[in-house]
Amino acid sequence: MHFISETSSNGVIERNFTLGDITGVLWSSASSSAGAPLILSGHTGGIHKKAPGLVANAHRLVTGNGYTVAAIDAPGHGDRPRDAEDEAARAGFARAHENGDPMGPLITEYNTSLAQRAVPEWQATIDALQALPEIGPDAPIGYGGMTLGVAIGLMLTAVEPRIRAASYGPVFTYEALIDAAKQITIPVEFTIAWDDEGIPREPGLALFDACASPEKSLHVYPGRHNRMLGVDPDAQSRFFARHLGGVA
Amino acid sequence: MHFISETSSNGVIERNFTLGDITGVLWSSASSSAGAPLILSGHTGGIHKKAPGLVANAHRLVTGNGYTVAAIDAPGHGDRPRDAEDEAARAGFARAHENGDPMGPLITEYNTSLAQRAVPEWQATIDALQALPEIGPDAPIGYGGMTLGVAIGLMLTAVEPRIRAASYGPVFTYEALIDAAKQITIPVEFTIAWDDEGIPREPGLALFDACASPEKSLHVYPGRHNRMLGVDPDAQSRFFARHLGGVA
Repeated sequence: MHFISETSSNGVIERNFTLGDITGVLWSSASSSAGAPLILSGHTGGIHKKAPGLVANAHRLVTGNGYTVAAIDAPGHGDRPRDAEDEAARAGFARAHENGDPMGPLITEYNTSLAQRAVPEWQATIDALQALPEIGPDAPIGYGGMTLGVAIGLMLTAVEPRIRAASYGPVFTYEALIDAAKQITIPVEFTIAWDDEGIPREPGLALFDACASPEKSLHVYPGRHNRMLGVDPDAQSRFFARHLGGVA
Repeated sequence: MHFISETSSNGVIERNFTLGDITGVLWSSASSSAGAPLILSGHTGGIHKKAPGLVANAHRLVTGNGYTVAAIDAPGHGDRPRDAEDEAARAGFARAHENGDPMGPLITEYNTSLAQRAVPEWQATIDALQALPEIGPDAPIGYGGMTLGVAIGLMLTAVEPRIRAASYGPVFTYEALIDAAKQITIPVEFTIAWDDEGIPREPGLALFDACASPEKSLHVYPGRHNRMLGVDPDAQSRFFARHLGGVA
């Protein structure tokens, strides 16, 4: 893991890093100590590790909870080059959007591929983060994300015992995600947007239903996934504080 | 409104009252002042205004939020006499339980009748509470309840503009409640128990869907309605604080 830049804003230190081909960012507090909980933050498809929503959420977790937060670009996203598959997928989405064709099959195929590539990348990133003296091997780890970040997060959480709590926003749900949810037994909160043509309700309810966690909850808000109405911005901070410790 | 007893515990003053045939209780803080938000608390069928859950919740809202909380016994419940209809309903529930018959039709019929009787009782209670100098006409009013308390609360909220926010727990849902939800436009939070033979999921989702409030949310937890797992006990306090003011 190579840190390539460091900036500071409102008491939050932001360090960009690379790990092989992976481009990532680590947010931490100047006063944070080894063993503080670490949140892995998964971005939405088409955007990147430092989209405004992710930055705001990271700042909230660092300053509010005293946590460290890490995000990496998904393959073909953000600072990472696109390969032929990524370009073909983007072209396919643009064409479907223009023609009014259903996006579901394209999302299923591309997110499945991205998750296959991203799961080992997240695992390598966790290895490298745990090797940092300011994090260490005992920091409780949580995962938070939305859409593509959930598709990746579910596949990761199903195979990664180091993740101890997860907060999943709305996601286009397909069979492999349902199967992953059946493997997940850690505390999980799900959020669904009730009025989203692109992400239907019923598969989201089925995903919650499939999750094997005894401690799970589902929170439903009106609106589309990127414009849910009335979400308490501190709800995720409290969820992680309940399950990973630290201050809410 | 006649106060018939007053006790005090952990900084919460509890006063039993009568208002005509209605038997009720008012919880307040020794330090609460006129204009502090007032929560109306609706109990579950078969129990009464001072069941342990209601008392605990009232104490939380008084000591945590600085609110006043009022509860009244539903007709035929608690300290109130049962008429022939109440006795017949109780006998019918017992018979259905013994025979393993479906309870839905009985609940629909009895809750419909109880709500018809309870709505004007709550309205008279609000009138009397607003006439108390320690509450006054400007106290923002919220409603919270579970099962029968929701059946009554939905019918009340649909016709009572003085209620400004409502928190509805799981309820056996029938058509009249769906119709009432369509009339409700204030901020509402709904809670559903995901694993309850007696209160199926789908009508609960339909109730949330029908509610006309732009600001509404639905929270789903595993378990039965009286044993939901992982509910944050302070969630309702925060909901009311967001919409009625006061300290969360």
